[in-house]
Amino acid sequence: MFITFEGLDFSGKSTQAKLLYEYLKKHKVKCILLREPGGTAISEKVREIILDREHIEMTPLTEFMLFSASRSQLVSQVIKPHLKKGYVVICDRYYDSSIAYQSFGGKMELNHVLQVNNIAAGGLVPDITFLIEITPKAAFARASSRRNSKDRMENKNTAFYNKVYKGFKEIAAKNRKRYTVINGTLSIDRIHNIIISIVNKKLSK
Amino acid sequence: MFITFEGLDFSGKSTQAKLLYEYLKKHKVKCILLREPGGTAISEKVREIILDREHIEMTPLTEFMLFSASRSQLVSQVIKPHLKKGYVVICDRYYDSSIAYQSFGGKMELNHVLQVNNIAAGGLVPDITFLIEITPKAAFARASSRRNSKDRMENKNTAFYNKVYKGFKEIAAKNRKRYTVINGTLSIDRIHNIIISIVNKKLSK
Repeated sequence: MFITFEGLDFSGKSTQAKLLYEYLKKHKVKCILLREPGGTAISEKVREIILDREHIEMTPLTEFMLFSASRSQLVSQVIKPHLKKGYVVICDRYYDSSIAYQSFGGKMELNHVLQVNNIAAGGLVPDITFLIEITPKAAFARASSRRNSKDRMENKNTAFYNKVYKGFKEIAAKNRKRYTVINGTLSIDRIHNIIISIVNKKLSK
Repeated sequence: MFITFEGLDFSGKSTQAKLLYEYLKKHKVKCILLREPGGTAISEKVREIILDREHIEMTPLTEFMLFSASRSQLVSQVIKPHLKKGYVVICDRYYDSSIAYQSFGGKMELNHVLQVNNIAAGGLVPDITFLIEITPKAAFARASSRRNSKDRMENKNTAFYNKVYKGFKEIAAKNRKRYTVINGTLSIDRIHNIIISIVNKKLSK
């Protein structure tokens, strides 16, 4: 089973991905936790290029191609082999983030992002995707309360994050079968309980 | 005008690209010489990841996505702005190399490579492409006579280069309008003269 978490930065998705991973491990379910971009030696090197703040000239298209390179290596080297061995694979962000950030937020044509996503992921679609939903306003409020993380959110403006936010909602609406949208302002425990009830239901099938 | 050079390693294409550049400069034609992957700070960092010999686990798909990332940055940051200013842009390898190496030589679906090529290059097609053609056998012979360059050719086997060689021939046959195939066993001077006569003809139009 392949489970992905999507949402704005500071939505709490990474916390929830980790809590699900710990829960499954505690219950002796074989699982791994991954994050994008990253998860392999090559993908981590690509991650460094993407996140390097000196690269202000990087176009949205190049950024997207780098995400796709990182993703294709992660899928073939780690995700697919683990799924084959019966693991639950949990991934903090996956290709829907590219649709939300590079197409809705950036200037890339949606059709181009969908084509490359499908190629880079080798056609691998998640079984369950959790969208932890908080508004950009709430995300900014959380960001400014955490000193170290402030810069990254402030690099791009509110209009950008509004588009990304809208993008995630549209993607979820178009992929209802695999998507669960969860109100990210609920308590961490409550969100976690919603998630494990859905995962357990799917696992017991 | 956008001119690209394609062919196997050791075909002499880099030498010819450089000679054309020097010829045009001597005749006061504004021009730049680029190589792929590379040509921008970001593209050079991507190049390092691609060429790193420790990355033996890199899949053909990841390699292709990295080439595409490097290319998209080069096209939008350097090639398109220079073409707009009336420069002749000479590029040592371009997206046809991805078709020959990753699709014919590697295992990527041709259709996938064509789709991503078009997206990464923002639709930019060369005006003239020179294929400097030598057989893989001749390429290996040249490689083994140059000590420092030996390893790279030997990393992959003859069967691989035969497929790449066949790939280049097919691409040239399918794109006759922009392609000129030149026998790479001719002397450097003779090849150079063929190239400049074609470029001058196009420039005088």
